[in-house]
Amino acid sequence: MEIISIPKIMQETSKEYLVDGKTIGLVPTMGALHEGHLSLVGRAKQENDITVVSIFVNPIQFGASEDLERYPRDIEGDTEKLRREKVDIIFMPEISSMYPEVFLTYVEVEKISERLCGAFRPGHFRGVATVVTKLLNIVKPTRAYFGQKDFQQSIIIKQLVKDLNMDVDVVVCPTVREQDGLAMSSRNAYLDRAQREAATVIYRCLKEASDLIKSGVIDRTYIKGLMQDRLLKEPAVSSVDYAGVYDPETMNELSEIKGDVLLTVALRIGDTRLIDNMLVTSSDYQIQQPNFKSLKERAI
Amino acid sequence: MEIISIPKIMQETSKEYLVDGKTIGLVPTMGALHEGHLSLVGRAKQENDITVVSIFVNPIQFGASEDLERYPRDIEGDTEKLRREKVDIIFMPEISSMYPEVFLTYVEVEKISERLCGAFRPGHFRGVATVVTKLLNIVKPTRAYFGQKDFQQSIIIKQLVKDLNMDVDVVVCPTVREQDGLAMSSRNAYLDRAQREAATVIYRCLKEASDLIKSGVIDRTYIKGLMQDRLLKEPAVSSVDYAGVYDPETMNELSEIKGDVLLTVALRIGDTRLIDNMLVTSSDYQIQQPNFKSLKERAI
Repeated sequence: MEIISIPKIMQETSKEYLVDGKTIGLVPTMGALHEGHLSLVGRAKQENDITVVSIFVNPIQFGASEDLERYPRDIEGDTEKLRREKVDIIFMPEISSMYPEVFLTYVEVEKISERLCGAFRPGHFRGVATVVTKLLNIVKPTRAYFGQKDFQQSIIIKQLVKDLNMDVDVVVCPTVREQDGLAMSSRNAYLDRAQREAATVIYRCLKEASDLIKSGVIDRTYIKGLMQDRLLKEPAVSSVDYAGVYDPETMNELSEIKGDVLLTVALRIGDTRLIDNMLVTSSDYQIQQPNFKSLKERAI
Repeated sequence: MEIISIPKIMQETSKEYLVDGKTIGLVPTMGALHEGHLSLVGRAKQENDITVVSIFVNPIQFGASEDLERYPRDIEGDTEKLRREKVDIIFMPEISSMYPEVFLTYVEVEKISERLCGAFRPGHFRGVATVVTKLLNIVKPTRAYFGQKDFQQSIIIKQLVKDLNMDVDVVVCPTVREQDGLAMSSRNAYLDRAQREAATVIYRCLKEASDLIKSGVIDRTYIKGLMQDRLLKEPAVSSVDYAGVYDPETMNELSEIKGDVLLTVALRIGDTRLIDNMLVTSSDYQIQQPNFKSLKERAI
């Protein structure tokens, strides 16, 4: 396993692999690796000749009041895990090599970046879009792997890759969960024992709402109310940024449950912000759709 | 010569050349080709195995009140010229394939985009940065060629390529001029005979200022005043957007003439906006610098 820290060397290394006809899979991470990351690594290894994992805690995606300083870091543990997974390259750049003193260019994805987490974390997705563009240009992967836990992020990255004609397949992999349903996240490490227990409310709430929709309860207001209620009833929850039913393409809140819907939650337990989501596809539930064709014919 | 209009086909074509170890030179243009463009093509042909010229009048770099509609187009003439130059590929995408209905991603280069033309054409450089990023991702060139006439644009593109770790060399080539000094520009076609004659004031003004500096007149206020005076005295000039002495790295107006300086002008003759510039390097002129070392020693 090679550890590369200089962007230009990473880029030249990738170029050599590509000229040799090899495919490259990239798993971009901020380190503090858990099973969720490792599932992306596993998938990348399956689908590509060369697997690169980047570890970079990207300062420009953190707001001034956010947890950049205390974000968990575990280079040794991460390196060991990736060695066991037989990853080919860890790309671990210095902040100064990613953002030299004069750094002026940002990638902005409009609209879908402005909702949900974008509304609560101004500049966050601009930071994500910019660093992902940089990482894709440096590593030149054939495929890049992201977790569904960060659903909005994955939608934004798909959009920017399409809009900027970047030559990479974006692969979104299922959220990996603890036994009690809590989505794996590096930020779970912030939780004390009682908070960790309380955090399961997120999965329970998503599951209850999802099961209700699947059973035919497609009243949007009822579902949203129920989600809010379940979360706010948990005393450890200090605030709910959002919880409800959203369009998985536009990230807009839905006015009715129809087609594919995204149940999504962001809340705080103590100072720790946690997010999770569950996609309910139209095939998961049956709705009696009015037969538009016959209605039209009748109108004629 | 191949003509390609579909971005994905262009990208796949380039990829094949790169795997074969070929270098690719890209000359991005908006068509209506003149000798300035052809000098870039010549340079690209000299330095690369494959030369691609893109022709795309990029709508998002034009303001609502600007000349997108009437911007000169001459596909047949352009194709003939490029055939004579033995260009390998013309990439000529449709607007709808570059900007499909849902298009949300923009590349912004801060600060250096905000001055000079950026101040007079809001959104212009965002449009340029975005389309250039797209073209570089589609064509995957080894080198990309731009004219010095659009000096600020070339600085912005160099910055974005560096900031986003794009794997391409940006080559800036000298401005090509008509016999009377007017910088070649597709927009010169807008000028009637009298306007065309009047437009030479730009070159004359730049040349006079440059010669003065080279002769030791390094009074910034005097030079700027002289430039403004020369331009405004020409009756055909309807307005001067800017004319003065700027820092060629930051695009800030200079408070004193020191080191490399950029003399630059943007003005209107009738409805036609014309720009030009001249770089005066520190080696072009001699300044008596105070000897700081001996001053310091004396102070001690």
